[in-house]
Amino acid sequence: MAKEGGLPRQVDHDERRQQIAAAVVRLVSSRGAQAASLRAVAAAAGVSMGAVQHYFTSTDEMLLFALEYGNGLFAARIQDMLRSAKTPVPLRASFRLLCTLLLPLDADSRMGARLWAALIARGCVDEPTSSLAADAYAGLTAFVARWLAEAAGPQAAASMDVGQAARRLVSVIEGLRWPVLFGVYDELEALAVLDSELDQIFGAD
Amino acid sequence: MAKEGGLPRQVDHDERRQQIAAAVVRLVSSRGAQAASLRAVAAAAGVSMGAVQHYFTSTDEMLLFALEYGNGLFAARIQDMLRSAKTPVPLRASFRLLCTLLLPLDADSRMGARLWAALIARGCVDEPTSSLAADAYAGLTAFVARWLAEAAGPQAAASMDVGQAARRLVSVIEGLRWPVLFGVYDELEALAVLDSELDQIFGAD
Repeated sequence: MAKEGGLPRQVDHDERRQQIAAAVVRLVSSRGAQAASLRAVAAAAGVSMGAVQHYFTSTDEMLLFALEYGNGLFAARIQDMLRSAKTPVPLRASFRLLCTLLLPLDADSRMGARLWAALIARGCVDEPTSSLAADAYAGLTAFVARWLAEAAGPQAAASMDVGQAARRLVSVIEGLRWPVLFGVYDELEALAVLDSELDQIFGAD
Repeated sequence: MAKEGGLPRQVDHDERRQQIAAAVVRLVSSRGAQAASLRAVAAAAGVSMGAVQHYFTSTDEMLLFALEYGNGLFAARIQDMLRSAKTPVPLRASFRLLCTLLLPLDADSRMGARLWAALIARGCVDEPTSSLAADAYAGLTAFVARWLAEAAGPQAAASMDVGQAARRLVSVIEGLRWPVLFGVYDELEALAVLDSELDQIFGAD
């Protein structure tokens, strides 16, 4: 494609795939996975249907790549926020930040939760998406476990079941997402549940 | 429709809607909400497409009714199991039973979890389904809160934040469902998280 103004430029394959994936993410999180038709995706990405077909051989492949891309964006957002926080971040505060990012309390995280809902629902009926969902949960749990081990220090970590604590914290956050998204638990109620879990891990202040 | 053998019978409207809803539930939990086309539902329910259209004016209405029907089946299953358990059931054991029914540890509860995933995903993009999902979470939380208040007795219930404890327990169970469904946490790991939560509510044995 030619850039406006006439100068042709080399379009990077990965960049174009990501541009399409970003459009798919917007469509899926606003209108659901079934809205990500070839026509709708091409229109949302501002490319031709032929271009979409050039980069993805099937809707399944496109959705899978988009879900992976969306998860990657989200993980990057967490890393960025943690890096930009004051150093050294008190560990409990970092954990709380991480956990609140997963709760659908603002527009970005609501979008993330809706994308995650599409991931779960597709993971129930599509094998490659199921693997992606499994990787996402395993990755999040391992990430939380590493942090917990660091927070506890080598001695305490040896006496604490870090894996169990991580699975528990991930479950609490994951389980809060949907009642919050559907307006059943309000922000204060969700944060109270989260804080009671953090009290258990870090001790009540 | 005439019964095989020739004798016509009065088909009960509600019964026929439920027969179709049961077919939708089977389709959605095995192949996802997008598989519930008019043609597929008619074939699965063993009725004509015209009959499906007679009972449901749109796919959205049909899916909503089926999700509600599936939730109702699940709630009835819980009530039945609790009633058929020895009376009086020790409260911690009843709670554990309730919680394990929500975890996708057997074929029925995996089907329930997949249906719930469809409910969450559709609830993200469809307003009536969002209300249904909200009602389901509110109903489950209220049910757990009532049980907790009974378990604690009037005096303890007054000093305990029953609502908070219920939101927390519901979150833990709900959050365990997906990593279990996708094979990331095994049964023992999930039950260990659940038992640590029950220890907190009922005290460690």
